[in-house]
Amino acid sequence: MRGVVMYKATDAVIRLTATCICGSDLWPYRGVEPADHTNMGHEYAGVVEEVGSDVKNVKVGDFVVGSFVISDNTCETCRSGYQSGCAHREFVAGTIGTQSEKARTPHADGTLVATPGQPTPDLIPSLLAASDVLGTGWYGAVAAEAGPGKTVAVVGDGAVGLMAVLAAKQLGAERIIAMSRHPERQELARFYGATDIVEERGDAGVAKIKELTDGLGAHSVVEAVGTQESTMQAIGATRPGGHLGFVGVNYDVTIQGIDLFFAGIHVEGGPAPVRRFLPHLIQLIWDREIDPGRVFDLTLPLEQAAEGYQAMDERRATRVLLTF
Amino acid sequence: MRGVVMYKATDAVIRLTATCICGSDLWPYRGVEPADHTNMGHEYAGVVEEVGSDVKNVKVGDFVVGSFVISDNTCETCRSGYQSGCAHREFVAGTIGTQSEKARTPHADGTLVATPGQPTPDLIPSLLAASDVLGTGWYGAVAAEAGPGKTVAVVGDGAVGLMAVLAAKQLGAERIIAMSRHPERQELARFYGATDIVEERGDAGVAKIKELTDGLGAHSVVEAVGTQESTMQAIGATRPGGHLGFVGVNYDVTIQGIDLFFAGIHVEGGPAPVRRFLPHLIQLIWDREIDPGRVFDLTLPLEQAAEGYQAMDERRATRVLLTF
Repeated sequence: MRGVVMYKATDAVIRLTATCICGSDLWPYRGVEPADHTNMGHEYAGVVEEVGSDVKNVKVGDFVVGSFVISDNTCETCRSGYQSGCAHREFVAGTIGTQSEKARTPHADGTLVATPGQPTPDLIPSLLAASDVLGTGWYGAVAAEAGPGKTVAVVGDGAVGLMAVLAAKQLGAERIIAMSRHPERQELARFYGATDIVEERGDAGVAKIKELTDGLGAHSVVEAVGTQESTMQAIGATRPGGHLGFVGVNYDVTIQGIDLFFAGIHVEGGPAPVRRFLPHLIQLIWDREIDPGRVFDLTLPLEQAAEGYQAMDERRATRVLLTF
Repeated sequence: MRGVVMYKATDAVIRLTATCICGSDLWPYRGVEPADHTNMGHEYAGVVEEVGSDVKNVKVGDFVVGSFVISDNTCETCRSGYQSGCAHREFVAGTIGTQSEKARTPHADGTLVATPGQPTPDLIPSLLAASDVLGTGWYGAVAAEAGPGKTVAVVGDGAVGLMAVLAAKQLGAERIIAMSRHPERQELARFYGATDIVEERGDAGVAKIKELTDGLGAHSVVEAVGTQESTMQAIGATRPGGHLGFVGVNYDVTIQGIDLFFAGIHVEGGPAPVRRFLPHLIQLIWDREIDPGRVFDLTLPLEQAAEGYQAMDERRATRVLLTF
């Protein structure tokens, strides 16, 4: 096991109960981002084992969930609800890493949220999901202004897309269109609240969304893939004046300004400010109002993480839960 | 004079009192857009001379202002405030053209707004401005969510940028930073409400905006140029979670998805839904609360339009008013 030491009085050390492998972990796995001596993993839920002298909001023994971005939750940007742009932000992936038994968490008071008590084992996958995949899908739906009376289209049936479906449902959307061509993911999308499934992609996908929305396009579209095709599909599926929330990491995407200009839509996205939503999401999970944990379709002990990466890379798994 | 005939019962014919040459008219002038047999001009104010049998909201003799986009103002998109995405939209530029003595206006009931009475001559330039340049700058400021307590940065000191400054002031912005290096435009920007001037451009411009905003960037940024440099400057000058309104026609701009992703901002733009704002803008002008007409710095009779184009092309004029 890697040694974990506190560096600052605002740090906490947590013993992980669960962590996972995220689609974005495949960027360094595939060599798109550097991977040498990188501390992998950024979703985490566990028990506080040690706190620095300045930590006030969590104590030893608390079960906590944190965002994949460290934030102080007190600076002006945090207070405006954009904690992933915090003045003290650090991405957990790469520098801290949570695919390990313990993890040091800087700015513990700002980053970690304690659950109302010790969770039963069945809640662990859902609480872990809140750390990124649920929080990110939720942000996509919020950025797309999903809500009552709205038709929401979700581009992408990976874990984040499925969580955006769940979020759109919770936010009261009238109609939720999941764009998916995988039967088992369509089923999960329907479980989470999808009212319609569209299998077409690209221009045909856009045409289908327009056909379902009186020729206008969806009020709200969530882009949860991050490829060129999915991005153009998402822009095209949004009605004039509509809202596009994009949360897929999009290294290879190029947008022509004039395409965005003549689309005439709102666009918001980026690394999700999960911390904004964490208290609400934890409560929804605690009250068993939502069951996001079902997105994990493969569970492995940490020692078999390598097999988990391979399963994700080969698309044999949507999302891998790692246990201890 | 070109013959003008009504085609439909929803048309009106107006006799132009004033029209103008817009920066976007330079796209066809320079050959970027086709110009052969194109009806040029899209800003207009004048007197209704004839109405079709279905026209109810304006009558012969009314002084009217219309948007540069024809809209029915009744379809779902119009009702949501995005009239430039109207189901019946037509761009006045190219198909109708208002650099002429008369113009046919389709969907007159939706497109035209009558003034409270016959305007005095000193109000004509301002009423004409409402048709596009003011309406577009205003939309840029609204899209950027300019308002009380906000710091607004305006990229571009052309007529639209200056109108965005005016709009930010009217919308109650606390601080308005005009990015300009031309002394006479800086002066006009200050007249319209700019509290600060930044002469730097590109990365240096972004650094200066951050320096003025505790390292965060502006809450609201209006992009009113449409070049690659101005677009990146605008994205960079917006704080995380902030709002960027873009109204510069941006044919040559390419945005890397990942730059937008890590900016973590809201983006909204496109052809301005001027019709949404027209009644309010006309009233502000009528009450002499605002004086947008000062952006016209060259007035020529219609017959000398060619000289007006040349003056715009050579940047000897910001905006040319054409009279009859």
